[in-house]
Amino acid sequence: MAYPMEGLPQQVTIYEVGPRDGLQNESAVVPVEVKAEFIDRLADAGHKVIEATSFVHPKWVPQLADADELLTRLHRRPGVRYPVLVPNLRGLDRALDRGVDEIAIFASATETFAAKNLNRSLESQFEMFEPVVARAVDNGVRVRAYVSMCFGDPWEGPTPIPQVVTVGERLLGLGCYELSLGDTIGVGTPGHVTALIKAFRRPDKLAVHFHDTYGQALGNTLAALRAGVTTVDASTGGIGGCPYAESATGNLATEDLVWMLRGLGIETGLDLGKLVATSTWLAELLGRPSPSRVVQALSKG
Amino acid sequence: MAYPMEGLPQQVTIYEVGPRDGLQNESAVVPVEVKAEFIDRLADAGHKVIEATSFVHPKWVPQLADADELLTRLHRRPGVRYPVLVPNLRGLDRALDRGVDEIAIFASATETFAAKNLNRSLESQFEMFEPVVARAVDNGVRVRAYVSMCFGDPWEGPTPIPQVVTVGERLLGLGCYELSLGDTIGVGTPGHVTALIKAFRRPDKLAVHFHDTYGQALGNTLAALRAGVTTVDASTGGIGGCPYAESATGNLATEDLVWMLRGLGIETGLDLGKLVATSTWLAELLGRPSPSRVVQALSKG
Repeated sequence: MAYPMEGLPQQVTIYEVGPRDGLQNESAVVPVEVKAEFIDRLADAGHKVIEATSFVHPKWVPQLADADELLTRLHRRPGVRYPVLVPNLRGLDRALDRGVDEIAIFASATETFAAKNLNRSLESQFEMFEPVVARAVDNGVRVRAYVSMCFGDPWEGPTPIPQVVTVGERLLGLGCYELSLGDTIGVGTPGHVTALIKAFRRPDKLAVHFHDTYGQALGNTLAALRAGVTTVDASTGGIGGCPYAESATGNLATEDLVWMLRGLGIETGLDLGKLVATSTWLAELLGRPSPSRVVQALSKG
Repeated sequence: MAYPMEGLPQQVTIYEVGPRDGLQNESAVVPVEVKAEFIDRLADAGHKVIEATSFVHPKWVPQLADADELLTRLHRRPGVRYPVLVPNLRGLDRALDRGVDEIAIFASATETFAAKNLNRSLESQFEMFEPVVARAVDNGVRVRAYVSMCFGDPWEGPTPIPQVVTVGERLLGLGCYELSLGDTIGVGTPGHVTALIKAFRRPDKLAVHFHDTYGQALGNTLAALRAGVTTVDASTGGIGGCPYAESATGNLATEDLVWMLRGLGIETGLDLGKLVATSTWLAELLGRPSPSRVVQALSKG
């Protein structure tokens, strides 16, 4: 039974990040055939966007060193998008070689994280992204931009909203079709979410990406939906974390999000039972329980 | 830094249920001096309402068999309320003997749970509560009424909103000063919360009591605050559970709630650091980690 709520969208796109963002922090390498099956199960559960992998250098993320092979093994389904993360021109060329038609880039909203994660200044990251986005767009490839540390980072405290907006508008100006505003360390609260989204000129260009480190991810999502966002990033079973905050729990769990949206009568096209079965299967392979409350409740029940 | 949000109250009362609702499902009996210290620590962290214990028969809740002794050991502070749960007239007399000035009763919104938990029909529970509330009020004792299974129960599916309202209004009519609307199995979503609260004539008489079984507790709290509720039940570190749903995780964690309210600039009078320290101390005594995300994040650092 659904109980709609005023001011919310009728439909939400869940952008599934489990295979890339979720797995990339796993130390034990997951075999490529398991990854392919994982993605296939997600599509079978109704996902229409599944970020499949990353063309980052294997030295930095050994878990995703099999990106080329994984893309060969994918059973692509009509109507399902399989974007991949691309850090630079070299990564883009690998993606283009594989016929990828959608990529994501990973930017920073703060100076310190730009230095630590990209080895760039906040300003000079755009010089790095500009040719990547240009070449992608020239090749008919859509580009999504992650903006990380939008609410705060471990070094600088709360991120000033105008600074996030400046970074985001620059990335849209380069030609990105969507910004994913990330609360990478999970410190945001609903009023902050509302204020940040309202500060952008085009909420229809925004997605949100919350981490549940302080239990705020779902309340923040509710605030984002009220502010006009209709694309929400989530990770199967809540897998993933932030390597820069040891205590960080993972991404918002897809299942917990689907539970809320289903209760609100908001269409996602997803089959909750299949999602829970996939998370339970994956948790067994990873050797530890899913952090998702819904998965915990429904798999024991 | 606080980011207020339109339509929310400036101040929220957190009704702390950890010592009673949290501990009552613990199988290993916690020593009475530990309980007294627990309550003292909560008051020291700034709590103004702490449900201390229950005068239920020890046969049903052995953990709280020490209620009389606990009340003797309490270091009562001016301005802090220490209500106790009372199931019947006998329990009330014990409470009056101890000079308790506020009690809580525990009602059901569904037929099946009334039968299982109270051995009563939905209708006949009022016959049981009527003399308890009357005698309490005659003695100058305030009475709060919990209404359990307000969103659904494990047997009947979603609870019809008019049925909850009827039960609640009857309890207010008996003389209760406040209703605590409980999502005992954690199935509610924000639109359901809004609809239920709006169906009551007096939102100022309502408190909410959410369980985080499906990760919805904090999003539901946000909806309740928007609908005019200013009293929220929570449990230290999220301890407690529902004995009728094995997989159920516990109450909304006080710390996760305080994180959200602090971010929203809503006054609670609570010291988050002291709350986390208390939950960490209690988790060690209980021999397992707190389910609160905030406690997990801040105690690992």
